[in-house]
Amino acid sequence: MLTPSLVIAKKRDGGELTREEVEWFISRFASGEIPDYQMSALAMAIYIRGMSTEEIAALTDAMLASGVTLAWPTLKGKIVDKHSTGGIGDKTSLILAPLLATCGLYVPMISGRGLGATGGTLDKLESIPGFRTNLSLTEIQEITARVGCVITGASADIAPADRKLYALRDVTATVPSIPLITASIMSKKLAAGLDRLVLDVKYGSGAFMKSLDDARALARSLVDTGKRMNVTTTALLTDMNQPLGSFAGNAVEVWECIEAMRGRCATDLWQVTAELGAELVVGAGIAADLESALELFAEKVSSGAVLMKFFEMVAEQGGDIDAFGELMEAKFGIGGESDSEHWPTLQGGHVIEARSAGFVQSIHTEKLGLAIIEKGGGRKVQTDRLDHWTGIEMLCRIGDEVREGQPIVRVFSSDDQLIRVAPMIQHAITFSHEPVESPPLIVERVE
Amino acid sequence: MLTPSLVIAKKRDGGELTREEVEWFISRFASGEIPDYQMSALAMAIYIRGMSTEEIAALTDAMLASGVTLAWPTLKGKIVDKHSTGGIGDKTSLILAPLLATCGLYVPMISGRGLGATGGTLDKLESIPGFRTNLSLTEIQEITARVGCVITGASADIAPADRKLYALRDVTATVPSIPLITASIMSKKLAAGLDRLVLDVKYGSGAFMKSLDDARALARSLVDTGKRMNVTTTALLTDMNQPLGSFAGNAVEVWECIEAMRGRCATDLWQVTAELGAELVVGAGIAADLESALELFAEKVSSGAVLMKFFEMVAEQGGDIDAFGELMEAKFGIGGESDSEHWPTLQGGHVIEARSAGFVQSIHTEKLGLAIIEKGGGRKVQTDRLDHWTGIEMLCRIGDEVREGQPIVRVFSSDDQLIRVAPMIQHAITFSHEPVESPPLIVERVE
Repeated sequence: MLTPSLVIAKKRDGGELTREEVEWFISRFASGEIPDYQMSALAMAIYIRGMSTEEIAALTDAMLASGVTLAWPTLKGKIVDKHSTGGIGDKTSLILAPLLATCGLYVPMISGRGLGATGGTLDKLESIPGFRTNLSLTEIQEITARVGCVITGASADIAPADRKLYALRDVTATVPSIPLITASIMSKKLAAGLDRLVLDVKYGSGAFMKSLDDARALARSLVDTGKRMNVTTTALLTDMNQPLGSFAGNAVEVWECIEAMRGRCATDLWQVTAELGAELVVGAGIAADLESALELFAEKVSSGAVLMKFFEMVAEQGGDIDAFGELMEAKFGIGGESDSEHWPTLQGGHVIEARSAGFVQSIHTEKLGLAIIEKGGGRKVQTDRLDHWTGIEMLCRIGDEVREGQPIVRVFSSDDQLIRVAPMIQHAITFSHEPVESPPLIVERVE
Repeated sequence: MLTPSLVIAKKRDGGELTREEVEWFISRFASGEIPDYQMSALAMAIYIRGMSTEEIAALTDAMLASGVTLAWPTLKGKIVDKHSTGGIGDKTSLILAPLLATCGLYVPMISGRGLGATGGTLDKLESIPGFRTNLSLTEIQEITARVGCVITGASADIAPADRKLYALRDVTATVPSIPLITASIMSKKLAAGLDRLVLDVKYGSGAFMKSLDDARALARSLVDTGKRMNVTTTALLTDMNQPLGSFAGNAVEVWECIEAMRGRCATDLWQVTAELGAELVVGAGIAADLESALELFAEKVSSGAVLMKFFEMVAEQGGDIDAFGELMEAKFGIGGESDSEHWPTLQGGHVIEARSAGFVQSIHTEKLGLAIIEKGGGRKVQTDRLDHWTGIEMLCRIGDEVREGQPIVRVFSSDDQLIRVAPMIQHAITFSHEPVESPPLIVERVE
């Protein structure tokens, strides 16, 4: 007879759990029969002992089976999604969802909130007054069909076991575990009824996976699990040793994305966004190869189609983009609708200067994320209310040569109390006397 | 700043916790600020990663500090105790407490209930009608001072953090962990304000520690922790590859102890009891060496002093020994007060016979314990009510030569439904065609 203790003890001692044992445990945890304290003991045993591919598959299935799975019988196009393991300044979802929709794909994107030092897509979008991230299953299906894309939180009907376990992992030091991450991501993504999925697995000082090896192992686990469930899954391993794009925060990132969709995009942000997108449009047969995918994307941006699609999605989800523009103007002296030839720059903020001359050697990106949290741009505990108007602008990148006193970071904050965060940011960036090479942005593809 | 997650993560990754971290975590767990699910994650990390001597000391101190510590300023004799890690048929406490009291020592024995397959001293004593095991601190102090010994449960004031953690470990597969066992045992024992402690660390098929090496490591940890707290602590490593004495159960063990205190004691039971006792009386300077201790004990038994002391303790704790004798007579056709020259034998029960001739090779002692639990003599879940009148009598020992059909175990049960347990017991005992050596009973002394 199965008992929680026997299952926990088996994993504790490094044994391989059977599919039956995993399903039995997870279904009872989901229903509340197995209490949190037994689940957290098992999660810690999984964290330390690991899981085989078969165990991860069983865990993913068990989480998926705890909720509903969407189906899309009436849609003609492919159902696709992108998922990122999270980083500082990672805002690709906001551009990619409307971009893919303009190419004829359907993107029912189930996103998350900030976790650890990294920002969350839902938190960013909630900078837009009225924007709803708690859509019902019916709303998700209707808006996806009508607009082509939606970005929302997981409804309570989707993988409820994951929702419970995720909350528990966050407070029991069991987050960065490949089996648990895989099952959590893939159960939610598979519940969306996808045909195809691309993963952005980040590594480096601003990612959960600090090393390329760990990121590669996670990508392997995610891709294998996706394939086993008949969802064509590929992954790109991308650099997170410095923030992606120029801004990190909430409203400032939405603004950066709007500028990007107008065609004014930081090179690194565009490269990651476009190559992730190419995985899906090439895979779905809409473009022949990477090159034609990039051409197609450029065309969709320059025609204004992507930005219009984004505004359409925002409106469908209750967001008031004009009100957002007015708030941006009030806070930063610049409207969301600016059409200047030159990139408009946000006004105000507090400039942090290089304390010595040299080449930017490293950026402790996680510390930048923590500095944003410190100023209210992220949560220390789950109940914290966000200040959406705080953030940073990166004025340097790894490899840049700077002179002493040159501005390297601009901090936006509702108050001007930067006594704690200015040194945090200052210490996060180190300099070298020797020239430093800029790190490669997209390192590997896993399929 | 300390957070539960940071402490858990440190141990998860194999780090050594500081005294401050351990105390911070345990005190908040005791007060309820840190919930069970965080404690169980830490317990699993401790189980798998282990703890250094310093960490175990800090954990013991933290548990001890969660409650009160007894002091004995008015007593002239030494305050001593014995603790066993538990086994099937292990009833030495019932004999040892009054035996030591007759030698001038004070024994405030804080005991436990059955755990896993092993019986519990409190459960056994509660076979005696009226016997109270929930004495207050004041009662413990008064009865110890007046009688010289007491056997009771830990009051809620003693190491409450241990009480909470113990309940959690039982359901999260974190029981057999040397650091957690050490802190649990030693915090309770140290709270009793002892001068001297002897530990009976059992190993084998009926003990938590299956191997001698594991038992030795646990003994080392317990003895080191005791010494560090200025309690002279020694340990004996004793065999639990077969039940200790002739009976296992509850009332039948109390009856066996009464017979033993009358001088009719199974050799193995007496040897373990006396050698444990000798550690304390020799250590306290009451006897010069093991030999004179054994002489002293024999004299205390033959004079009737030990049995009188036991009856005195039972009466002080509300027990009605005459009622117990009457119940024994009603159930087994024999009175507790029998004074026959020959050992009286319990009547009735169901005899299990050897299915083949040979030498008794091994006894899966834990299975015998589980058979007793199956018949109500122990608990499957904490709320189970016990049937105190169930139990077994061992009619063979390892090395004995038996003929086919010879009685090897007698089962006492309130019903006569032995369909499940008779095969359990049958399969627990294996035979060899070759002669088998009887295993050594007391293997090592750790000081």
